[in-house]
Amino acid sequence: MMNWISKNNILIVGLGLMGGSVAKGLKRLGFHVEGIDCSQAAIDFAVSNGIVDCGYAYPDEVAIRKADVIIFALYPEVFKEWVREQQHLFKYGLLITDVTGVKGCVVYEIQKMLRDDVEYVPAHPMAGREVSGVENADDSIFLGANFIVAPTERNTEAGIEWCKGLGKILGFRKISVLTPEEHDEMIGFVSQLTHVIAVSLMTCNDNTHLVDYTGDSFRDLTRIASINENMWSELFLMNKHYLLQHMDSFISEMSQFRDLLAAEDREGMKEKMRLSTERHSYFI
Amino acid sequence: MMNWISKNNILIVGLGLMGGSVAKGLKRLGFHVEGIDCSQAAIDFAVSNGIVDCGYAYPDEVAIRKADVIIFALYPEVFKEWVREQQHLFKYGLLITDVTGVKGCVVYEIQKMLRDDVEYVPAHPMAGREVSGVENADDSIFLGANFIVAPTERNTEAGIEWCKGLGKILGFRKISVLTPEEHDEMIGFVSQLTHVIAVSLMTCNDNTHLVDYTGDSFRDLTRIASINENMWSELFLMNKHYLLQHMDSFISEMSQFRDLLAAEDREGMKEKMRLSTERHSYFI
Repeated sequence: MMNWISKNNILIVGLGLMGGSVAKGLKRLGFHVEGIDCSQAAIDFAVSNGIVDCGYAYPDEVAIRKADVIIFALYPEVFKEWVREQQHLFKYGLLITDVTGVKGCVVYEIQKMLRDDVEYVPAHPMAGREVSGVENADDSIFLGANFIVAPTERNTEAGIEWCKGLGKILGFRKISVLTPEEHDEMIGFVSQLTHVIAVSLMTCNDNTHLVDYTGDSFRDLTRIASINENMWSELFLMNKHYLLQHMDSFISEMSQFRDLLAAEDREGMKEKMRLSTERHSYFI
Repeated sequence: MMNWISKNNILIVGLGLMGGSVAKGLKRLGFHVEGIDCSQAAIDFAVSNGIVDCGYAYPDEVAIRKADVIIFALYPEVFKEWVREQQHLFKYGLLITDVTGVKGCVVYEIQKMLRDDVEYVPAHPMAGREVSGVENADDSIFLGANFIVAPTERNTEAGIEWCKGLGKILGFRKISVLTPEEHDEMIGFVSQLTHVIAVSLMTCNDNTHLVDYTGDSFRDLTRIASINENMWSELFLMNKHYLLQHMDSFISEMSQFRDLLAAEDREGMKEKMRLSTERHSYFI
């Protein structure tokens, strides 16, 4: 049985905020955790703060060979490249998973290139902070958050259960299974569209003179406007299909509201507001 | 000197969330506060909960005649009508102010129709809650909030100072003086545009099946999506000029971002994100 007790040696590839947080959580649970990251500074920080047991600023052959589980916390393109180049070192029957925020553009390509004896179970722990880097790693961000497993037809039931188990032991509140496409459509709406809105609100005019007058509404809508441009631009491009659909439907809805206001259609605006209030009640 | 100590009898017209909160704050400071509201239930609640000393569900002549100060917490159109019909009862030299969330469409009209001996100093206490009604009145919402005085050329220095004093004694963090036009442009951006965005995010598609997957970003952007449609539709219509400008500039900015994504212009998206992050740093 592929349970977590028998998987002692965990390797985390990519020690940023997410990789570091996963490492912290697994270390706390008693696993032996090693890390690989291209930044020596990130490795030094992770080792000296006990986030990993040991680490390497290069793809250390011994570390890769002995891993029972590899968890990837890399940007999508780097993730693909790394698997392509290093999979000859993977232990026979290895299980791998990831934390990537888009699935469709990553999952099929990696599963297709992967050795037949290795199973990649795609996952997206939906947690994060407004800051990045292993120095901000914090496994308490998982508590109360959602963990999505996004398997394909190539995945085994056992592999999916194993991956759900990872979400459970890390303390996630809810574990869901979605197809890669369902995941990407959902994430395009609840996460990516909201980030584009926050960015556009900050960039649509020079609003910095208004800092004295902003209340809760403006602060809430722009909390996520400080954004890691390298990561998010890559995520947006990888989810272009769904994100464009959501942006188009949002822009069209805003434009409809704009036209109702321009036409002084009070009833039309009230209708939208009533629908908004009603739908919002499900989210409270 | 028009100081607050000499103004003992305060009349609040309109006992909703804001009128009730102002009444509570002034009662706490030791003033004699009476209230008028067309709802007998609101009056009953306010009296039996000590929010006002006494109240009337009609424009009581004695209450109006003896008021040293009247504070209006009505919807804009009702506010105008009330002043037009009742100002013959106002005490000579009366000071009035309000809490209306738009200024240009209200201020000039009321000042023009007002008796020469009465001074109306326009104000907007920028505070609120997601719930309405006098039963939710709470003067602690003023602490840390902004109080805007929006005078015109018809106002006296003494009247403006008196109105700033109201904001101070109610516990507002910051008291500002803006022209009605500056106020309306500002409020159209920081408050009204953000509400249209939250509403449009809720109405642009049926998203209720996503309730299990929403994280902090979606919750933050839609916190204000439960909205009092009567009040906000009136405020939007009264600030149509500025709100349309802001909506147009926001929609155009979102569309630009959409085109950058469609063209897979990674650098263009990153440029927007960097600007957003930089501007947002002023608001933290």
